[in-house]
Amino acid sequence: MSNTLTSREQDYSQWYNDLILKGNLADYSAVRGCMVIKPYGFALWENMRDQLDRMFKETGHQNAYFPLFIPKSFLSKEAAHVEGFAKECAVVTHYRLKNDPNGGGVIVDPDAKLEEELIVRPTSETIIWSTYKNWVQSYRDLPILVNQWANVVRWEMRTRLFLRTAEFLWQEGHTAHATREEAIEETERMLEVYATFAEEYMAVPVIRGVKSANERFAGAEDTYCIEALMQDGKALQAGTSHFLGQNFAKAFDVQFTDRDNKMDYVWATSWGVSTRLIGALVMAHSDDQGLILPPKLAPTQVVIVPIYNKDIDARQKIDDKAKELVKELGKKGIRAKFDNDDTTRPGWKFAEYELRGVPVRLAIGARDLENNQVEVARRDTKEKSSYALVGLTEQIADLLENIQKSMYQKALTFREDKTTKVDTWEEFVDILDNKGGFVSAHWDGTSETEEKIKEKTKATIRCIPLNNTMEEGKCILTGNPSTQRVLFARAY
Amino acid sequence: MSNTLTSREQDYSQWYNDLILKGNLADYSAVRGCMVIKPYGFALWENMRDQLDRMFKETGHQNAYFPLFIPKSFLSKEAAHVEGFAKECAVVTHYRLKNDPNGGGVIVDPDAKLEEELIVRPTSETIIWSTYKNWVQSYRDLPILVNQWANVVRWEMRTRLFLRTAEFLWQEGHTAHATREEAIEETERMLEVYATFAEEYMAVPVIRGVKSANERFAGAEDTYCIEALMQDGKALQAGTSHFLGQNFAKAFDVQFTDRDNKMDYVWATSWGVSTRLIGALVMAHSDDQGLILPPKLAPTQVVIVPIYNKDIDARQKIDDKAKELVKELGKKGIRAKFDNDDTTRPGWKFAEYELRGVPVRLAIGARDLENNQVEVARRDTKEKSSYALVGLTEQIADLLENIQKSMYQKALTFREDKTTKVDTWEEFVDILDNKGGFVSAHWDGTSETEEKIKEKTKATIRCIPLNNTMEEGKCILTGNPSTQRVLFARAY
Repeated sequence: MSNTLTSREQDYSQWYNDLILKGNLADYSAVRGCMVIKPYGFALWENMRDQLDRMFKETGHQNAYFPLFIPKSFLSKEAAHVEGFAKECAVVTHYRLKNDPNGGGVIVDPDAKLEEELIVRPTSETIIWSTYKNWVQSYRDLPILVNQWANVVRWEMRTRLFLRTAEFLWQEGHTAHATREEAIEETERMLEVYATFAEEYMAVPVIRGVKSANERFAGAEDTYCIEALMQDGKALQAGTSHFLGQNFAKAFDVQFTDRDNKMDYVWATSWGVSTRLIGALVMAHSDDQGLILPPKLAPTQVVIVPIYNKDIDARQKIDDKAKELVKELGKKGIRAKFDNDDTTRPGWKFAEYELRGVPVRLAIGARDLENNQVEVARRDTKEKSSYALVGLTEQIADLLENIQKSMYQKALTFREDKTTKVDTWEEFVDILDNKGGFVSAHWDGTSETEEKIKEKTKATIRCIPLNNTMEEGKCILTGNPSTQRVLFARAY
Repeated sequence: MSNTLTSREQDYSQWYNDLILKGNLADYSAVRGCMVIKPYGFALWENMRDQLDRMFKETGHQNAYFPLFIPKSFLSKEAAHVEGFAKECAVVTHYRLKNDPNGGGVIVDPDAKLEEELIVRPTSETIIWSTYKNWVQSYRDLPILVNQWANVVRWEMRTRLFLRTAEFLWQEGHTAHATREEAIEETERMLEVYATFAEEYMAVPVIRGVKSANERFAGAEDTYCIEALMQDGKALQAGTSHFLGQNFAKAFDVQFTDRDNKMDYVWATSWGVSTRLIGALVMAHSDDQGLILPPKLAPTQVVIVPIYNKDIDARQKIDDKAKELVKELGKKGIRAKFDNDDTTRPGWKFAEYELRGVPVRLAIGARDLENNQVEVARRDTKEKSSYALVGLTEQIADLLENIQKSMYQKALTFREDKTTKVDTWEEFVDILDNKGGFVSAHWDGTSETEEKIKEKTKATIRCIPLNNTMEEGKCILTGNPSTQRVLFARAY
């Protein structure tokens, strides 16, 4: 397989697929719509997961695990919820195979039909709230602050590696509270955790906002979201945090005795991010040579490539120095790797690590050592310079921080350039077709108008930004009065 | 719910269930055979998982993720494998629900039937080897050293929390090698990793051995195992490591070009441990007052309980000292918790933390502080003593190590006492019925005899110990010649 990627300009979508496959992040599988996450992709996910997990625990959450299967009747208990998920459910109907008595090989045993079908969880509100019923009697049992790392299945018809797959990995927080206010506070707190993660770790700036009714989670009273912008000018929903009101508590009859000894239904939130974030990370930063990974999440932060000549002694010195550097960098918590594989040439390695998005590359040759220096190349800007060996680890640590910040800044500038205020329908369509990005425009607040705009332009309301400026205006489609601008975009 | 447990003597099986439920490790779920792992149980699993994961990475393995679903035809490709798993497969047949046009609520949409049924993975050899086919061309692509943390489903008819559940969490390593020798070496290496983990972290001594043909994994040439002994004298298989030969490479046509440019099939291993280990941990150490957790895995290692009197100043001093201690212990990497909840009394807390198996409890009252000491209670032996505040953290660190070792030693002594050599059938039956534990006896090596012994006594061959002494003898059942003793036991 050639390592050359289709360029972004030529075919952005193909560039993305090439990058995921050739960058060794994931592979197609034999099961329709399901992917294989390869070791390099999984190492990236582990870094994301571990950091998110730390942030969840710092905000008081604990992990737990609930069943993969949901009885069909449970899914049906919350009307909007089942409406939202019914069309993409994988259904288990039998629990045994057997040898076909007619010699047709292994078949499903018709005698092993389940009395009630089981749905492979598309999300776990129903199975979790059926459990919380047993955990909550009084306000003293609240809040419940639980998160689950799990696989879920949504039978999507059109799939894309990481962005939309039939099975994906995610975390889903499910919390239970005594008051409406406390639940809303939790919903907003977790949105802020996601935004912080996206910006400080993924180096992806995000808009914090609230979804319109059309785009709300099935069963939520309010869906908060973070929205990111990709290099092709399309938006991507990177995480959602839902205020569920008392909907699931009512569906599963979860009541509690409050401080005044009165019974009330429990208030709920749920919030999730998934392996989709890997797609967002890749599309936000990478270039035609390959991945560009933010240092804080890159599986390998620094790779050392030796430039050998025929002198065996010099070679030994290079090896010794490289190994010493890996150790020293490791002591500072920097994930460094020495690639001394002598079956491939330095040029091949340079291209390979560019493809893999390793943030910093050190090249060490005999002459470098004589001059007490190394060649340092940063992946994001491709700048090269010579660094003195003295104080090198501190300089590398600074460089990694610098790259992290500069990747964020670049993405932020890009997003700002691609966010356009428009006040007329013509301009709205023109920007969407020719510039892309977020379009900030007035909308009359009705679902009907939102749907019409979507039909005409394929753009959706990504969100109503939090702390939005109130401003009188007229809806770009209907001309009806509006009190604030919302963000439209075509989206993944 | 009362916190009192059924005693082991009264009903060992009920004691175990009580302990899992009241110790807050897990809960039954609404889905037959599936459990909910509660936050306390999951925190224990996280400690086990993280340590195993470190050990896998230290031995060169990387994590990856493969699909939850396996096409039915894949499972059928290895004859012994499908034979072994067919009877306990959850089968997905449809991918959509819809509203019943006749008003019967939400039903499975008959138009959304899958062309080929999908099996929810009971284990992943088949889907993984169908993928490895694309990853391996030459010996340079080998070895592949991959592990997966995942949920799997085996539709067991009789389930027990943690010990045997329809869905469970586990890890499954799947490695690919160029030679038979290398694959066997890997199989043995991973068995040793499991044994080390069981003994050094779980404080559970294990016998390392090889399974007889009857007990072999479906599709393996050899199954290595570690076997532990529970307090009721029954054995429990705690982990298995399989040498798969070329069986799966042949089933999925995974060939490679070796160093001599000849084609050969790839050699395979797989190895796994699961949440079953939590059941083993609980049954090996706990007592009638509750869990006894080994310090290295306990979610909370030290709990500090304040003994308040009416003096507010003294109370403040206790709080300050306790918080300082939590911080100091934390600096030494000790997971400590200060329970200053004043809605419950110290006696209630003592019982609660005994139930939860926290290894060390510190009680601090006003008089203790005046005397510059605290009361220290260890959970395993229930011994109490006074420790000086000076140098306390070092002493606690030593105590935790001491508890870890002494738990292992106690379990080892128990196992040695419960391992009996027998040479006659009468003695064999007598020991199984009246003493329990491992019975070391001669066996003629045939599956037929093994099955007859199982029918008559419910005992199975747990393993043929590694490095077994060769010794001429006569099979306890048939009197036929035998070359070595094997270990029998009744087992979970």
